[in-house]
Amino acid sequence: MEFLLELLIALAVLFVLARLGSMLFSRLGLPGLIGEIIIGIIVANTVISEWIHLDFSSGDSDIYTVVYAFSELGVIFLLFSVGLETKVKDLLGAGRPALLAAVLGVILPFIAGVALVMATYGEMPAAMFMGAAMVATSVGITARIIKDMKLMDTREARIIIGAAVIDDVLGMMVLAMVKGMAEEGVSVGDIVLLAVQATLFVVGIILICKYVMPKVYDYFDKRKRKAVSEGKVIWSVNKLIMAVIVCLAMAAFAEFIGLAAIIGAFLAGMLFADHAWEWDLEHKIETITTFFISFFFLSVGMQVDINDLFDVGVLAMAAVVILLALATKFVGCGFGAKLGDKNVDKTGFNIIGVGMMPRGEVGIIVATIGLVSGVLPSDLYAVVVLMSVATTIIAPPILSKLFRKKYAEEYKILPDDRI
Amino acid sequence: MEFLLELLIALAVLFVLARLGSMLFSRLGLPGLIGEIIIGIIVANTVISEWIHLDFSSGDSDIYTVVYAFSELGVIFLLFSVGLETKVKDLLGAGRPALLAAVLGVILPFIAGVALVMATYGEMPAAMFMGAAMVATSVGITARIIKDMKLMDTREARIIIGAAVIDDVLGMMVLAMVKGMAEEGVSVGDIVLLAVQATLFVVGIILICKYVMPKVYDYFDKRKRKAVSEGKVIWSVNKLIMAVIVCLAMAAFAEFIGLAAIIGAFLAGMLFADHAWEWDLEHKIETITTFFISFFFLSVGMQVDINDLFDVGVLAMAAVVILLALATKFVGCGFGAKLGDKNVDKTGFNIIGVGMMPRGEVGIIVATIGLVSGVLPSDLYAVVVLMSVATTIIAPPILSKLFRKKYAEEYKILPDDRI
Repeated sequence: MEFLLELLIALAVLFVLARLGSMLFSRLGLPGLIGEIIIGIIVANTVISEWIHLDFSSGDSDIYTVVYAFSELGVIFLLFSVGLETKVKDLLGAGRPALLAAVLGVILPFIAGVALVMATYGEMPAAMFMGAAMVATSVGITARIIKDMKLMDTREARIIIGAAVIDDVLGMMVLAMVKGMAEEGVSVGDIVLLAVQATLFVVGIILICKYVMPKVYDYFDKRKRKAVSEGKVIWSVNKLIMAVIVCLAMAAFAEFIGLAAIIGAFLAGMLFADHAWEWDLEHKIETITTFFISFFFLSVGMQVDINDLFDVGVLAMAAVVILLALATKFVGCGFGAKLGDKNVDKTGFNIIGVGMMPRGEVGIIVATIGLVSGVLPSDLYAVVVLMSVATTIIAPPILSKLFRKKYAEEYKILPDDRI
Repeated sequence: MEFLLELLIALAVLFVLARLGSMLFSRLGLPGLIGEIIIGIIVANTVISEWIHLDFSSGDSDIYTVVYAFSELGVIFLLFSVGLETKVKDLLGAGRPALLAAVLGVILPFIAGVALVMATYGEMPAAMFMGAAMVATSVGITARIIKDMKLMDTREARIIIGAAVIDDVLGMMVLAMVKGMAEEGVSVGDIVLLAVQATLFVVGIILICKYVMPKVYDYFDKRKRKAVSEGKVIWSVNKLIMAVIVCLAMAAFAEFIGLAAIIGAFLAGMLFADHAWEWDLEHKIETITTFFISFFFLSVGMQVDINDLFDVGVLAMAAVVILLALATKFVGCGFGAKLGDKNVDKTGFNIIGVGMMPRGEVGIIVATIGLVSGVLPSDLYAVVVLMSVATTIIAPPILSKLFRKKYAEEYKILPDDRI
């Protein structure tokens, strides 16, 4: 029973520390996940990791095995949740400005990331991962500001949300290709094969969502109504367990064919998106995610080599990457939106550009996959973590100000700068 | 990433199999957990365990480490859920018939279990575990029948539910003493010390629930109202994470002082029982439990030595234990209830006696602790599993018939024997 006691203590300590970090940063008006990452850095670099038998470096600790499993399940369920909120009809009906904002907002940061690392490190697989990590917007932060300010009905908000959904799908496709290429070694044939594979998987699931799933739901719905009208007993399956099984199976399948597990989880979420609310899946998966996800951000921090954070070269690189990440997303999304909708004015351009800036957890997830695959060196991993943290901190206050400027008269706005 | 793929496959396969077993037994009108236990036996004794890299015998498999952690967390959250439903005011206000039914329904099975194993095996620690495993009623099955038949307002239902709550607390105290004694070796001084320790822990928490917790809730409630009236922002903590932390910490504490982790989890649940509904804790913890608990019943099955199930001696012992478990609970609870309330008639006696018979998961949990501690031999573990399964299968149909007999006129009863 010694292991059980050690495990319970380790989990309780990690939960408490993660919560403290998260609450502290929330109080400062910053995303809690940044606090959890910092706690991870502290735990890994102090005696705390010894106290809780979390010997993460040797890879031989049973406690670490469990914590690692928790962190992976956390990020898998997080992407499953994102998928649950990604309805195919929103995706296909987001319109030209959202589509163009998403596409340009993916292409520019990707090219910038690849070019920068090729110019400095000269290694293609690492460069691809840096590009992929700079691609994906984490729209959670922006969505929360929009919701808090009750601006969901504005043109800019609709474009941002639509673009973010498409951006998620494009980001997954980029990650799929990058991950496959990193493992296989880059040849033109491989690139083509992987691009085809990733595209087929994503497009296939989108087509299934659009044409097959409604029929499946209809069939079971009719069967249920028929049984009820005939007074028969219905043997319904537990929806939560079914969803969890599909999520794990598709994550395993994605991993098996050389894509990332989270891609499978995200696409699995899309399959259930139309019924997530009816089946109370969103809340239940959110509860499970809440349980696991802190371990992911803690382990992100644990994998940051603290020496990199005091290295001038790393900090200089991070500064350049942060500027590029902000600028490319701003120009790509703002310009794309304006290209698609002439009614987007200058402030609208700014709002959409800034609203798509935060990379949050998504950039870090991509970088973690690169690090674990041995492709992304630890200093570039630290750069991505710094970039994600910085973009996530910088964007919200600017976005609030821009929204307030544009909609001060039409909407009742909060009296101060509180987000 | 190899480990992640193996883990996802193992979890998906175990979820699917557990769900199939559970659904099959539910269709037969039996508790799903029996199906999950049988699936566990099948997985452990076939090539399936090799396929999913679940080498549970060597103890050296990372997949097994994670599955073991999941099963332990499953049972800890299960007991936490039970605690969340155990309100101290129900406990203290259950009345004489419930109290007497609980006390006699604990004493008789305990004595019978201890006496039988002492007579046959002659080993005190094993005998104590057998006694403890025969003590605790799993009221879930009975409660479901009562709810389905809409008989919650009957005298018998109230006595059964009240007795079951007290029975849970007494069962935890018995387990606490038995576990401590098994580890320390039996001396009179140890027994007294452990009894005092377990009693202090349980009574202490009950007193805290009654006198301290209401004041804590009041304080935060007042603080919140004051802040709202002054227009200040409230920094509320995430209730789910707080509850999980308290649960894990109290489970670790119980384990640390030599009690069982589940005792701490159960008492932690009691602390939140008055606010579990308001904070939506019941549903959220239920969701987390749903995720983990199948792994517990699977691992119960995995730990059954299949040879024991074909051993005549084991089956004979199981037959005797099953008869004793049924008879002692029936007489103890029925007689106790009648002693406390003269209005309990003969059918009422039978209903209460039969309603308290199912041991379900609780007996198995106790036996698992005995097995893992090395005190309960594997053949007696198999006996307890058979006893739990048998009492859980036998009681429900009899209970339905008895209720139908007594309340056929007052209540509209389901037309057939469906539970």
